[in-house]
Amino acid sequence: MSDLQSSLFIRACHCEPTERVPVWFMRQAGRYLPEYQKLRETVDFLQLCRTPELVAEVTMQPVRRFGFDAAIIFSDILIPCEAMGIELSFDELGPHFDNPLRSPEDINRLHLPYSEEEMPFISEAIRILKRELEPMGIPLIGFVGGPFTVASYMIEGRTSRNFEYTKAMMYREPDSWHRLIELTTSTLISHLQAQIRAGVDAIQVFNIWTNGLSPRDYREFALPYVQALFDATKGTVPRIYFMLNSGTYFADMFSVEPDVISVDWTTDLSFAREQIPADVAIQGNLDPVILYGTPEFVAGRVRESLTLMQGRNGYIFNLGHGVLPKTPLESIQAAVDAVKTFSPDESGE
Amino acid sequence: MSDLQSSLFIRACHCEPTERVPVWFMRQAGRYLPEYQKLRETVDFLQLCRTPELVAEVTMQPVRRFGFDAAIIFSDILIPCEAMGIELSFDELGPHFDNPLRSPEDINRLHLPYSEEEMPFISEAIRILKRELEPMGIPLIGFVGGPFTVASYMIEGRTSRNFEYTKAMMYREPDSWHRLIELTTSTLISHLQAQIRAGVDAIQVFNIWTNGLSPRDYREFALPYVQALFDATKGTVPRIYFMLNSGTYFADMFSVEPDVISVDWTTDLSFAREQIPADVAIQGNLDPVILYGTPEFVAGRVRESLTLMQGRNGYIFNLGHGVLPKTPLESIQAAVDAVKTFSPDESGE
Repeated sequence: MSDLQSSLFIRACHCEPTERVPVWFMRQAGRYLPEYQKLRETVDFLQLCRTPELVAEVTMQPVRRFGFDAAIIFSDILIPCEAMGIELSFDELGPHFDNPLRSPEDINRLHLPYSEEEMPFISEAIRILKRELEPMGIPLIGFVGGPFTVASYMIEGRTSRNFEYTKAMMYREPDSWHRLIELTTSTLISHLQAQIRAGVDAIQVFNIWTNGLSPRDYREFALPYVQALFDATKGTVPRIYFMLNSGTYFADMFSVEPDVISVDWTTDLSFAREQIPADVAIQGNLDPVILYGTPEFVAGRVRESLTLMQGRNGYIFNLGHGVLPKTPLESIQAAVDAVKTFSPDESGE
Repeated sequence: MSDLQSSLFIRACHCEPTERVPVWFMRQAGRYLPEYQKLRETVDFLQLCRTPELVAEVTMQPVRRFGFDAAIIFSDILIPCEAMGIELSFDELGPHFDNPLRSPEDINRLHLPYSEEEMPFISEAIRILKRELEPMGIPLIGFVGGPFTVASYMIEGRTSRNFEYTKAMMYREPDSWHRLIELTTSTLISHLQAQIRAGVDAIQVFNIWTNGLSPRDYREFALPYVQALFDATKGTVPRIYFMLNSGTYFADMFSVEPDVISVDWTTDLSFAREQIPADVAIQGNLDPVILYGTPEFVAGRVRESLTLMQGRNGYIFNLGHGVLPKTPLESIQAAVDAVKTFSPDESGE
C-alpha cells in the first residue's frame, strides 16, 4: 500500500504537490470500448457484474489502453439494491426495477441487515485487481451511488425526468421516504466498508440524481444521509463526492467533509477553484460531449482546464460526468495525452 | 393599455410596489386541465395552435378557472420553425422533426426572411385575447424559445439528454452552427416583434435547453444570440428571461438586460434575491413537482417563498418550470389562493 500513497492520484486527493495532474474518467470502463463490447457478446450485464474475474478484466481494459492514473471497479450503483431484496433488471434502456417501491408495504418487503456474503463478487474482484494494479502503482477506486439516487431509483423503477413518484412519497408520506432512504444508506455504508476492507485505495459517492431536487429539498430529504455515509467512512481512504449541478451545492458538499469534490460539467471550473477551500481537492470537469469534437479540439479544451487550474494543489483531471457510449476512442486518447504532456509553458496559448 | 400598466403583474415587472404578489404559472394552459383535454378530443395539437379562436379559448381556460394575474398565449416554442421551412410533428412523446438538420445542406434548405403572413394565427389570437382580457385588467404575455433551445431542437429532432448532434456541429463545424442559430434568432426576433405589434403586454424568452451547455459554451455559442433578441426588443414591453439552472447563469442573464429574471426551481430563492439587482424583477420558482403534495403542503411551501421575498419589490410568483401534465387541480388552486391571501403577519410561521 505504501507505494500507492506516493501515486499521483492519491497525493492529489490529499492536496499534496504532484509533478503533473493525474487523470481518470468516470465510466472509463464500458460500452464505448470494443474490447468490452466483445466480452459482452458472451455474457449479460448482470452476470458480468457478478463474476469477479470479468469485473477485473473490464476494470483493467481502459487502464491498459489509455494509461489512466487510477482504475475504478466496474459495477453499477444499483447492484447493492439486490442485497436489499429488490430484483434488478437491465435492458437496452438501462437498469430498471419491475416492482418499484411505491407504498409502505413495498418498503416493508426489503430485507436487512446487509451481509457481505450477499455480494462476495465485489470483494473478490477487488482482491484480484489489487494484485494486478499494485505492481503498476495504480490505485483502485471503489464506489456507491448517493442515498437519494439509489432510493429514488427504487421508487421510480427507471430513469426519471421529474421524480414524480419519489416526490409524491417525500411530500405525502415523509415517514416512508425517511425509512426507505435510511435502509438504503445503511446498505450503502456496509457496501463501502466491505470495499474498503477488501483493499480499495479511495472511494467515490455518485449522487447523480440530486439534480432532480431543489437545494431546499436536498437539505431536508437527502443531505443527512450523505452525511451519515461520509461520517461512517471518516479516517479510512480518500473520499470523493460527485453531484450533478455541483456549483449550486458547494456549501452543502463541503459540509459532509469529503477529501475531494468532483465537479460536474455544468459548473465553471474557475468558480469551483474560487469556491472550494484549498485543503479539499478538485476533480473534473470536462463536458463528456466535448469528446465528440476532433482530437485537436479536445486537446485544446483539456489545456484550457489545465491552464485555469495551474498552481492549485489537489487537482485531478476527469470528465464532468461519465463517458458516453458513442465517444470516439481517439478523443479519449487525445485527452489523456494532453493531460500527461501539458507543461506550464503552454499556459499562454 | 393604460389600465394594464397599473395591473399587479406589469407593475411587478417594473419593480414598482404592489398590494400583493401577482401569480401566473408557466404552462398554465394545457394538458392537466379537463376542459383542455375535452377540446383536444376534437382537434390535434398543431391544428389547435393554428386556429386563433381555439388558441384564445385555451389561453383563457386557466385564467377563468384559477384567477391567474396574467395570461400567456397558448402555442409551442417550435411553431416558428415551420416558418423557416422545416416540418414539425407532434406525437404522445412531444414535438419532433422527422428531417432534423445535420449538415450544411440541411441548413441551406431553410428559407428566410420570415414574414408575419406565415403565422397570421398568432397575431389574430392575440387580438381576440386582448379584447377579452383588457376589460378584466389581465395582461397577456407573448413568448419565444431561446435561440439555442430552438436551433438545437432542429438539430436533435427530438428532446435530447446530451445534445450530441448539436455539440458535434458546434465543435466540428462551428460555421454551420453559427449560421443556423443566426437564422433562428432572426426568425425569433421577427416573431417577437409581430406579437408586440399585435398587442402583448410582456414577453418571455424560454431558454429551457441551455442546461445542456456548460457556462463556457453558453457564452460562446448561445449568449450573443440571446443578446440580439433582447437588444431588438428594448424599449417595447417588459421582457422576461427564463433559463434552467438559472443560479449558474445569473451574471450572464443580467448581461442581456432583461426586465425580469425567471428563476428555475433548481435555484435557491434566497440566493436569487441576494444576487439579482434590485431594479430587475424576480419571477419564480416553486418546483412544479411540489404540486404533487397535498393542498396544505403546497400552501405551506408557497408561503415559505412569499416570506422569503417579503419587502422585495418586483416579485412575481410562478413555478420554476412548466406545470406537469398530471398535476392535481386542487394543488394549483391551493397555490394561487395561498399567494392571493398571504399577509405579512404569517411571516413568522
